[in-house]
Amino acid sequence: MNGRRIYFDFAASSPQAFNGEAVLKDAPFGNPSSAHAEGRLAKNALSQARARCARALGVPEKTLYFTSGGSESNSIVILSQLLHFTTHFRVKEEEGGKQKKVECLTSAIEHPSVLRPFETLERFGARINYARPASFGGVLAESALKVFSGAPGCRFVSIQAVNNETGACSDIKGITAALRRARPEGLFIHSDCVQALGKTCVNLTGSGIDAASFSAHKIGGPRGIGLLYLKKPLEPLVKGGVQEMGLRGGTENTAGALLFAECMELYATKENLLREYKAAEIRMERLVLGLRSIKRCVLTPHFRGDKTYEARYEGVEGALFSPYIVSAAFEGIPGPVMARFLDGAGFAVSTGAACSQAGAERKVLLAMGVDEKTASCAVRFSQGYTTTNEEIDLLLNAIEDACASI
Amino acid sequence: MNGRRIYFDFAASSPQAFNGEAVLKDAPFGNPSSAHAEGRLAKNALSQARARCARALGVPEKTLYFTSGGSESNSIVILSQLLHFTTHFRVKEEEGGKQKKVECLTSAIEHPSVLRPFETLERFGARINYARPASFGGVLAESALKVFSGAPGCRFVSIQAVNNETGACSDIKGITAALRRARPEGLFIHSDCVQALGKTCVNLTGSGIDAASFSAHKIGGPRGIGLLYLKKPLEPLVKGGVQEMGLRGGTENTAGALLFAECMELYATKENLLREYKAAEIRMERLVLGLRSIKRCVLTPHFRGDKTYEARYEGVEGALFSPYIVSAAFEGIPGPVMARFLDGAGFAVSTGAACSQAGAERKVLLAMGVDEKTASCAVRFSQGYTTTNEEIDLLLNAIEDACASI
Repeated sequence: MNGRRIYFDFAASSPQAFNGEAVLKDAPFGNPSSAHAEGRLAKNALSQARARCARALGVPEKTLYFTSGGSESNSIVILSQLLHFTTHFRVKEEEGGKQKKVECLTSAIEHPSVLRPFETLERFGARINYARPASFGGVLAESALKVFSGAPGCRFVSIQAVNNETGACSDIKGITAALRRARPEGLFIHSDCVQALGKTCVNLTGSGIDAASFSAHKIGGPRGIGLLYLKKPLEPLVKGGVQEMGLRGGTENTAGALLFAECMELYATKENLLREYKAAEIRMERLVLGLRSIKRCVLTPHFRGDKTYEARYEGVEGALFSPYIVSAAFEGIPGPVMARFLDGAGFAVSTGAACSQAGAERKVLLAMGVDEKTASCAVRFSQGYTTTNEEIDLLLNAIEDACASI
Repeated sequence: MNGRRIYFDFAASSPQAFNGEAVLKDAPFGNPSSAHAEGRLAKNALSQARARCARALGVPEKTLYFTSGGSESNSIVILSQLLHFTTHFRVKEEEGGKQKKVECLTSAIEHPSVLRPFETLERFGARINYARPASFGGVLAESALKVFSGAPGCRFVSIQAVNNETGACSDIKGITAALRRARPEGLFIHSDCVQALGKTCVNLTGSGIDAASFSAHKIGGPRGIGLLYLKKPLEPLVKGGVQEMGLRGGTENTAGALLFAECMELYATKENLLREYKAAEIRMERLVLGLRSIKRCVLTPHFRGDKTYEARYEGVEGALFSPYIVSAAFEGIPGPVMARFLDGAGFAVSTGAACSQAGAERKVLLAMGVDEKTASCAVRFSQGYTTTNEEIDLLLNAIEDACASI
């Protein structure tokens, strides 16, 4: 890489935002499960990291469990549903009755790390129901409730907070309220909040959810550390050891937890989040406005930034989009071609979730009603805390160059 | 912690052995799945880390998969067996026949991170058979074969290489040879090699195993990164994304992988391993000799260091014990009391696996025939690459003090 690089792929991973050396120098190396002084120091550090994350998120410490990342957090929650299958088999044996289908509700626009564990449940005989997003890209209560009503056995729901390709926000609060009204007892609702953490307001206690997944490396933290919020303890598929209150075995990543806490305090406390949010919103308006002025550009959804269209969703509480992600297609320029052109010009952008790069399908865009041709030309621009107006202007110039020369 | 601390708990976790700052400064932050320059740099770094680990272990690169640690490596392999259950259910449905029991073979002295996933399989109806260790603490081919012969449906085996409490080496090569002779087709053999890596010879290609688990933090690496060796690709319970060749989803921990590679080269290459091994052996002989001379001390097994007794196992290939771990009981002094005394005197030792600290049972020692009273008084001493003769002498003095004053 020669020359200046400008990074617009913060939704994939972000440069480290902390002074790692200082934190790591003080991270105790002992095993937090060991009883000796080195172990107690490590245990203490881990507790402090958990307490700091809990304060930032406004939840009790005992509701936060460290994991290896967002994917694992999602997997732990969803796979725990497999345990109900044995119950069903037992029911079958004892009563000689027909095996009941285990039913789940999720959406068509989830991240692969949510969809894949559901595929595993499906393999074991579960029926997975998929709510459709509205045309702006988020899931609304109405759509979730409609599918839910057709699935009388459904007791497990997982809907993402912010979509990783479009930045569209699902109406988590509205969804939980509607579903719980419809089925007040025994409903477990999980939300993949990886793209929401430090980017949009995550009100865990007020949202009515039972579980949420978070990852450190999307907000400037290291790779290999994540969090799982659980309102009440959950029985995992594999019973953990003494670690993480029995939820997850394996020697705890103390250094990673401390660095995660560091980033949480920098970006996920309400105060700091709102400060960054306002700045990000102003920069995103500049980017959206610039994109809309480019002739071959169609935003996905096409009405992003158009107040008249957006007003259709007036009933939805909160913002429709995260100010950190925007998706746009350029007529006649396949997404990967545009991404490669920009890469050559010094800009890192992507065509969708890095995790599903190999499968170049644009499922998320198609699910929200974007036509196939437009979807195939879409590119994702995701900014971060360090993005500047100058970088946005340079990006817009480079896109204009691409549209003029491709 | 005031004054000098001397660490004899390397089997629980080890101080970092690398210059982390230098490696981390160069670790690319990009997402290895991203197509842009930052992503390609990260992908390249991850490939290099894998190649370096592969060279150190003497295996092809494509057989190594990065995970979040030894526990996850164990869990991935063992839980993959759940997929056979659906097959069995299908057989049942299609042929109307009686559901076959899935059978597995493991040992009574495995680490909790192996035993727990097996408990999950058991919950789904599998029958888990447990091979007993010989009196020195390792599992021999004869014992494994005996149990195996009584389990005609068994197609999955998991036996640890080195026990984490006693340092006893199981005869992995002999076990695989015997079991494969008995059942030449469709047998999958896994070995938890966490305590063997960089400590005893791990000959992956010559041992006849299909899979092995490793962890970085036991050999001076960071927490949160492990490896899974798979001779052939394995279908995991949750299908991964494009990451780790489809085995494990989640953005790869590039920095962790680079640090793991660093430690692998320092300690796990054959040349470096043997150099450290010889030095460790000499130090361990000093420690064992010293322990044997303490009146209230009974080594567990009692004959460790006694050549006449050890000769009983002449037929076993390789060493009976890892030179990095020794277990000893002190008459009338409960293990935790001795560990606390030594902790107060500046020495970190433990009573067993840190991961099962809460359950104070001494299952491993009881399984090898140590009586309950002695087992309850056992303490584990585990040395590392940096341990010195002086530290061993100081430890022995402190133990003598303990025996004189407790």
